[in-house]
Amino acid sequence: MKAYQITAPTGLDALQQVELPQPEPGPREMLVRIHACSINYRDLSMPRGGYQRNNKTPLIPFSDGAGEVVELGDGVSEFAVGDKVAGCFFQDWETGTPTEAQFRTALGGGLDGVLAEYVVFRERGAVKIPAGYSYEEAACLPCAAVTAWHALTRANTQPGQTVLTLGTGGVSIFAVQLAKAFGARVISTSSSDAKLARVRELGADETINYVDTPDWDEAVRELTGGMGVDNVIEVGGSGTLAKSFKSAKIGGTISLIGVLTGRAENPAPSALMRNLQTMNGIYVGNRTMFQALIQAIELHGIKPLIDKVLPFDDARGAYEYIVQGQHMGKIVVRVLAPVG
Amino acid sequence: MKAYQITAPTGLDALQQVELPQPEPGPREMLVRIHACSINYRDLSMPRGGYQRNNKTPLIPFSDGAGEVVELGDGVSEFAVGDKVAGCFFQDWETGTPTEAQFRTALGGGLDGVLAEYVVFRERGAVKIPAGYSYEEAACLPCAAVTAWHALTRANTQPGQTVLTLGTGGVSIFAVQLAKAFGARVISTSSSDAKLARVRELGADETINYVDTPDWDEAVRELTGGMGVDNVIEVGGSGTLAKSFKSAKIGGTISLIGVLTGRAENPAPSALMRNLQTMNGIYVGNRTMFQALIQAIELHGIKPLIDKVLPFDDARGAYEYIVQGQHMGKIVVRVLAPVG
Amino acid sequence: MKAYQITAPTGLDALQQVELPQPEPGPREMLVRIHACSINYRDLSMPRGGYQRNNKTPLIPFSDGAGEVVELGDGVSEFAVGDKVAGCFFQDWETGTPTEAQFRTALGGGLDGVLAEYVVFRERGAVKIPAGYSYEEAACLPCAAVTAWHALTRANTQPGQTVLTLGTGGVSIFAVQLAKAFGARVISTSSSDAKLARVRELGADETINYVDTPDWDEAVRELTGGMGVDNVIEVGGSGTLAKSFKSAKIGGTISLIGVLTGRAENPAPSALMRNLQTMNGIYVGNRTMFQALIQAIELHGIKPLIDKVLPFDDARGAYEYIVQGQHMGKIVVRVLAPVG
Amino acid sequence: MKAYQITAPTGLDALQQVELPQPEPGPREMLVRIHACSINYRDLSMPRGGYQRNNKTPLIPFSDGAGEVVELGDGVSEFAVGDKVAGCFFQDWETGTPTEAQFRTALGGGLDGVLAEYVVFRERGAVKIPAGYSYEEAACLPCAAVTAWHALTRANTQPGQTVLTLGTGGVSIFAVQLAKAFGARVISTSSSDAKLARVRELGADETINYVDTPDWDEAVRELTGGMGVDNVIEVGGSGTLAKSFKSAKIGGTISLIGVLTGRAENPAPSALMRNLQTMNGIYVGNRTMFQALIQAIELHGIKPLIDKVLPFDDARGAYEYIVQGQHMGKIVVRVLAPVG
Repeated sequence: MKAYQITAPTGLDALQQVELPQPEPGPREMLVRIHACSINYRDLSMPRGGYQRNNKTPLIPFSDGAGEVVELGDGVSEFAVGDKVAGCFFQDWETGTPTEAQFRTALGGGLDGVLAEYVVFRERGAVKIPAGYSYEEAACLPCAAVTAWHALTRANTQPGQTVLTLGTGGVSIFAVQLAKAFGARVISTSSSDAKLARVRELGADETINYVDTPDWDEAVRELTGGMGVDNVIEVGGSGTLAKSFKSAKIGGTISLIGVLTGRAENPAPSALMRNLQTMNGIYVGNRTMFQALIQAIELHGIKPLIDKVLPFDDARGAYEYIVQGQHMGKIVVRVLAPVG
Repeated sequence: MKAYQITAPTGLDALQQVELPQPEPGPREMLVRIHACSINYRDLSMPRGGYQRNNKTPLIPFSDGAGEVVELGDGVSEFAVGDKVAGCFFQDWETGTPTEAQFRTALGGGLDGVLAEYVVFRERGAVKIPAGYSYEEAACLPCAAVTAWHALTRANTQPGQTVLTLGTGGVSIFAVQLAKAFGARVISTSSSDAKLARVRELGADETINYVDTPDWDEAVRELTGGMGVDNVIEVGGSGTLAKSFKSAKIGGTISLIGVLTGRAENPAPSALMRNLQTMNGIYVGNRTMFQALIQAIELHGIKPLIDKVLPFDDARGAYEYIVQGQHMGKIVVRVLAPVG
Repeated sequence: MKAYQITAPTGLDALQQVELPQPEPGPREMLVRIHACSINYRDLSMPRGGYQRNNKTPLIPFSDGAGEVVELGDGVSEFAVGDKVAGCFFQDWETGTPTEAQFRTALGGGLDGVLAEYVVFRERGAVKIPAGYSYEEAACLPCAAVTAWHALTRANTQPGQTVLTLGTGGVSIFAVQLAKAFGARVISTSSSDAKLARVRELGADETINYVDTPDWDEAVRELTGGMGVDNVIEVGGSGTLAKSFKSAKIGGTISLIGVLTGRAENPAPSALMRNLQTMNGIYVGNRTMFQALIQAIELHGIKPLIDKVLPFDDARGAYEYIVQGQHMGKIVVRVLAPVG
Repeated sequence: MKAYQITAPTGLDALQQVELPQPEPGPREMLVRIHACSINYRDLSMPRGGYQRNNKTPLIPFSDGAGEVVELGDGVSEFAVGDKVAGCFFQDWETGTPTEAQFRTALGGGLDGVLAEYVVFRERGAVKIPAGYSYEEAACLPCAAVTAWHALTRANTQPGQTVLTLGTGGVSIFAVQLAKAFGARVISTSSSDAKLARVRELGADETINYVDTPDWDEAVRELTGGMGVDNVIEVGGSGTLAKSFKSAKIGGTISLIGVLTGRAENPAPSALMRNLQTMNGIYVGNRTMFQALIQAIELHGIKPLIDKVLPFDDARGAYEYIVQGQHMGKIVVRVLAPVG
């Protein structure tokens, strides 16, 4: 089968399309014909050898893929041949809190990923895709949507609360859509008015251009009657965290998801202390969250915002595009062209 | 001032319109000119002397009222003269779990209620009414809407979950509307197809006529793929509880709110045990819940369903109407006619 | 190998010692040489065909067993040959909330149990026994101790709270010992002063003889300054539940575990409602709970109270003894005699 | 009456003993004859004008005091003249989450404190002191013990879990004692072997001298089988936080309480993210926590560790002593000498 491999931690040139033997499903596993994948920021780290936890080398990259079950290993009861499925980011984190060993079962990290024609998923490392979803759409969910869901549920989001999202990457866009499904009010930031207009269409109640309004935390407080928001979907890290503390209300939550702003000075956490805030470390999520997310997606008719779909032979383009940071929502790689 | 009093636990004839001195606000209290009240099932018990906890005699009945602040006692800082407010069901239950003494501060129960031209509320026993609400609408909230909110929040309702409501009384109708604001799917029962049509308009996704379908628990399971619902808004008590157990999923919640079906045989609780279910005893709620509810109401534009508005001189008619059980939503008494 | 089987739902005479082929471990399973088992009340139902969920026929009974790993199936990484292990009550309920299918993996219920010389456990259906534990002691934990742990953790038991235990069966005795490890105060009931003296030795702070004090709920309230307890470990069901409601405080918890008192009239749940209480349906628990329990057991040096140890050939005696209800703590069956 | 005042934010010389009129209790307030006070690190900030939230000037310092009720204002029902009471750190934070306005009711901060012969407490801003406590002992509780209790309860501490405490200040010593009451295992650090020996006597299971073992986070991981602890009582802030992240397990909690290490470089929060950890901002706590704490203190017979008791005329000595950081536990100021 065709697949991509990162053969060494030497940069993007180490990404090679290769021919590999088709994997075989063991007990309680199944073989899946991948139709579509999507890239996430974390995938940028693998070619650089920069990510945490025991990454394989060589490594088939990408955690997020969807396809069709073509063969069942022994003892599989939840799925049948022909089922449309997506893989779970962690192959072995069904529910609750994971162990270190379970953390090492991340696709495209501790385990080979999904940028390949065929992949083996564990039975409890996959879910049926939402009704009415294409494979491209389903391929957007495993990392970014589950992450947003995890952040919103762990903070006990309720109707009438306010959620702040930063930027327009995959997690942030899902957070806007899902926060509306929770009945929350959404304030979104971006550097682009055009993107903010699009975010409003997706449900954001209020938007702030952080270039025009560098003190966006003050704008957030004004929009909340001086109170601050209930939950910040924090994808920026050290460069935005100080303002996120100030944007959150007394007793509010910072859902710490990403560190996209890189190596800025880290803020003192004393603001968190004085305001009884909670910072939740969010690292994707488990299968139970994925299943609950799909129930919400189906009820609310939520569809991913897909920025671009690239062909399998141009998978490298997905890396080059996401690194620019100009996208909105998700970047998909088509592995198998749809028929007809 | 004019007011109603229940002078003895001898039935509805003990309800008398009387002339009483206007009350005076003490420290951290305020005098409110009542414009509208609403009745709840619990108010039926007072004339019969049948309710729990140390009811006053004579008693001004009704817990739910809204009006205008006309005078402030010493030390009030949250409100100003002219503010439109509604009283909290419990005058002294601000947040957390109440004490027995705090439970005895129920309006129209341990304390005099609001079926009067003027009432004194404690500063932390009142809230500002939702933006855009009339006094009639605001008078619908303190008992029924707070109860529904309490049930939905305590069960950690999430988008994609399913909530089952029984009948079309005040709590059940609010539960339908609020469960939709939580992003949940709603299944509602009633004995009337006409009412079920109305409940669908208010947001219910599925409806069951329990006269046509006496095994409505089986219908609920069918509508949930055999799984059962996440949360039952249980207002029936012994007559419906056995079927509510069967309607709820493994790990699901029964929000026990009312016992309207009266003296049927009580079911064994073993079903709850075997299915890891939780039964939450819900008894209205506190001021913090009321404030959070109002945030949700304002964001979602929820308005109460008012079945009928009666004039002050016909307050007895509210008792006679609610006891028939044919209403949908709330029954209001107008204390002060709107100007113009 | 030797084993017991219940061959038909015709009563205790259907319990037969038989010779069966030794089972073989599949992938992620392991073969365990059982040394000791223990009986629970639920085991009384199997010979009568009376229990819930798809019991096997014929059925090897008993859920609780401990022994030594003698052979590993493919892919087992958590255990090695020679490890001392106990099986989890549910072979497939690792954490979180189970599905109906997972509920059907109860040992000695939906699956064959442990009253046999050899048993196959799933890798994630077993735990290492506590340090310093004999096999007899370890065989006491899977059902009764996990149940007590589940009840105490789900109710968020804290130091200074009060826990009420009813009677001196296996769950109640573990609840006494574990509630002390949570830092709680314990009030225990029994019909026997001798047993109450023993329960005090195990940690109970206060005891009530419910024969001498039939209104034991009033005694409980006196012992708690009129407030009631935080958590009732309710093993009696319909015959004790009304008094349990009265024994619990406002906002308190009833942990519903058993229905030992049989077919008394069921109480109305309205007390639960009026006092904002929570009733938690407890049905043993999952592997994560078992592992946390073992951490607590090891830190606190808790040992099970074993009433009697019977030889394998007299397993029937365990049924006959538990049904009398005169025991204190656990009744064990020795499958393999200790060496030396 | 005699009292101390900080008359300007100009340093410790601005602390003056003065003669002030005795305050008078308003409605729902009471006058208390203070017998003893205690100092906390936060009190060091007031003379420097360095603390958050609207501090008064001039200000009577100290939040923690205990004494005897000598006069009741109107409407007080929970207390009687002669009751022994301690004030709550926040006079108006009864339970739940506070508002900004409630946060400004800190004694010795937004409101005058307790370093005076007479103080007025609000009825719901005081608690009865634990049975068997002296006034000196009770004066140790309002800030440090409530803080430790808040940290342990918010992290859902359970028996068998491991809690890490840093240093031997007031909060850390209470955390050791209380964590044992929760049934947890305790690991404590200090720079002094003598202090570590004392901490062991108070209940710590393991100790680490962080001077001898600068990589104390590695020592913590070794002591927990490589897993890390469940909860870090983090009083150091930027200087210890990076190691605290590493000391906590996957899914563990950092209870952020203090920033005693001052202006070290702040660590990146990405460790928190990758390990699904939670950081809880802890800022003392509310009256409900204080009351629950007292229940635990009484049941477990916990007494504060008092390092030194100073006479009222030497209150300045308390500042000078705490700033050295050589104490263990609490530093008390005797306002009224005990009789006899």
